[in-house]
Amino acid sequence: MSKNTVLAVMPFTKEQQEQMKETYPQLNFIFTDYKSVTEEEIKDAEVIIGNVPAAQLKNADKLQWIHLNSAGYDAYVGEGILPKKVILTNSTGAYDVAVGEHVLAMTMEVSKKLHFYRDSQLKCEWSDYGEVLPLHDRRVLIVGLGGIGGYYGKLMKALGNNIVGIRRNIKVKPDFVDEIYTFDMLDEQISLADIVVLALPASPQTNGLMNEERFKKMKKSAMFFNIGRGSLVDMEALYQALEQKQILGAGIDVMTPEPLPAEHPLWKLPNIVITPHISGQFHLPETLTRIQKLAMDNLEAFAGNAAYRNVVKR
Amino acid sequence: MSKNTVLAVMPFTKEQQEQMKETYPQLNFIFTDYKSVTEEEIKDAEVIIGNVPAAQLKNADKLQWIHLNSAGYDAYVGEGILPKKVILTNSTGAYDVAVGEHVLAMTMEVSKKLHFYRDSQLKCEWSDYGEVLPLHDRRVLIVGLGGIGGYYGKLMKALGNNIVGIRRNIKVKPDFVDEIYTFDMLDEQISLADIVVLALPASPQTNGLMNEERFKKMKKSAMFFNIGRGSLVDMEALYQALEQKQILGAGIDVMTPEPLPAEHPLWKLPNIVITPHISGQFHLPETLTRIQKLAMDNLEAFAGNAAYRNVVKR
Repeated sequence: MSKNTVLAVMPFTKEQQEQMKETYPQLNFIFTDYKSVTEEEIKDAEVIIGNVPAAQLKNADKLQWIHLNSAGYDAYVGEGILPKKVILTNSTGAYDVAVGEHVLAMTMEVSKKLHFYRDSQLKCEWSDYGEVLPLHDRRVLIVGLGGIGGYYGKLMKALGNNIVGIRRNIKVKPDFVDEIYTFDMLDEQISLADIVVLALPASPQTNGLMNEERFKKMKKSAMFFNIGRGSLVDMEALYQALEQKQILGAGIDVMTPEPLPAEHPLWKLPNIVITPHISGQFHLPETLTRIQKLAMDNLEAFAGNAAYRNVVKR
Repeated sequence: MSKNTVLAVMPFTKEQQEQMKETYPQLNFIFTDYKSVTEEEIKDAEVIIGNVPAAQLKNADKLQWIHLNSAGYDAYVGEGILPKKVILTNSTGAYDVAVGEHVLAMTMEVSKKLHFYRDSQLKCEWSDYGEVLPLHDRRVLIVGLGGIGGYYGKLMKALGNNIVGIRRNIKVKPDFVDEIYTFDMLDEQISLADIVVLALPASPQTNGLMNEERFKKMKKSAMFFNIGRGSLVDMEALYQALEQKQILGAGIDVMTPEPLPAEHPLWKLPNIVITPHISGQFHLPETLTRIQKLAMDNLEAFAGNAAYRNVVKR
């Protein structure tokens, strides 16, 4: 019986590769990356770990299971992309720490005006920007209490803030959450918050969630952060809210479009910090470790010894 | 019997002023600020709250007690400045939250490369700076475990880091500290730390503490922060450590000289964030609240009902 082939399209470290090969000697591992992977390799694989181009999967006749390195899976669930028999799993959870920490850092940057001080530094200017905001006792509204929003909430709670969560299912209130509401309370809660954080996936329901009306409900002293998807926010409304100082400041890692064109007026507003959708990816080494852990757990499932984790229903 | 006069040279809010007047109707309060205060007012006061020019105190014949809004008191303890009978108290503790939070924010900014992303933003550039550092499980060396260093340590502990403290008296280890050492272990601990934070006062003993040799002991991947006093650091050694990438990055709020001249080469180094000695002052409104609390407690002492807090021995 020939060995099943596992095509890993991921920047796993040498150590991680060795660990996988040693744990599963009955499998034939091929390690490559997104740019180098060939159609031939995809066609020959029983297992794929990593996001290969979805269009190339139609010829993957041997494929039994694919594990995505992303949490998102939209590109892989359309009609005719993957045969029904193929198991699809994703990496939900792997990015919680990386993205949660990133938005924590952005929260602090805007609260303490470090972006203004950086601007002055580049001009070699010793300038005082006056009053700053505390990092404790703030009312923090987290819209979307999944892994990422939840991790941010835990950190902000540990620093002494009040955490208000909005999500669909409020039957279980996590320990770090002070108050929890469903989406029908969103408008009211937006008007009470010092910090509003969107940590939702893209969906028809969340599309344009933060619009002109909702930015106007925010306190003038409040800050806004988006670490979900660009589609959650009406970009023109965000621009107006900041430009007219309806809100104090913002930090966004996701936007529409991406990359943000050089001529987009948002770049030039002083009271926003923009990062180019880098909070996730593999920029925090721990993320790769977490994805490998998920992949290893699911290799155990492929070997017939466990149930698959993070199965995408389709 | 005429009322004793309390000259408050501080930006107390109207509310805070009312509270003080209502609590002590037997006292005659004069509220002014550093720029407006007159020699005549100082001469007539039994009590001064706030840092008036030290040189003007020599004619303060009626003065019984002065409360400084600063933690530092060097300017007030020299020969012939204050008569021995005058009680001198200071505001140690009032700045712990403001300065501790500021250095926390700088730690996150450098860890997540937010200063680089800000630089790109000013150029309207969508650029990816790659790997970032985690905000947890770091070995954080705090040199000087007073109120400010301690507050920062508490916050970093709450986020899941390992706290190593250096101070003179190690008989009592605070709960948030994992390891505590005296100054003879400084060099060894510097070589082990991911984050080195100086939170010491200026003194002949701490002058030039961070020199070329000690920067060379730091890990290449480590970060350095100074929130104590500029005199703690050999500025040329700091410049060399950053310029030659002996260390990963730095954040400083205090330096020599202040203001840092526009032509100073430190401004232009990419891997340092500089703030112009603004972490303290009254920039966090809570600081003023804390100073007022100290002043109120000591007004109770002036009334004979309590012991003075924060008495400076001289």
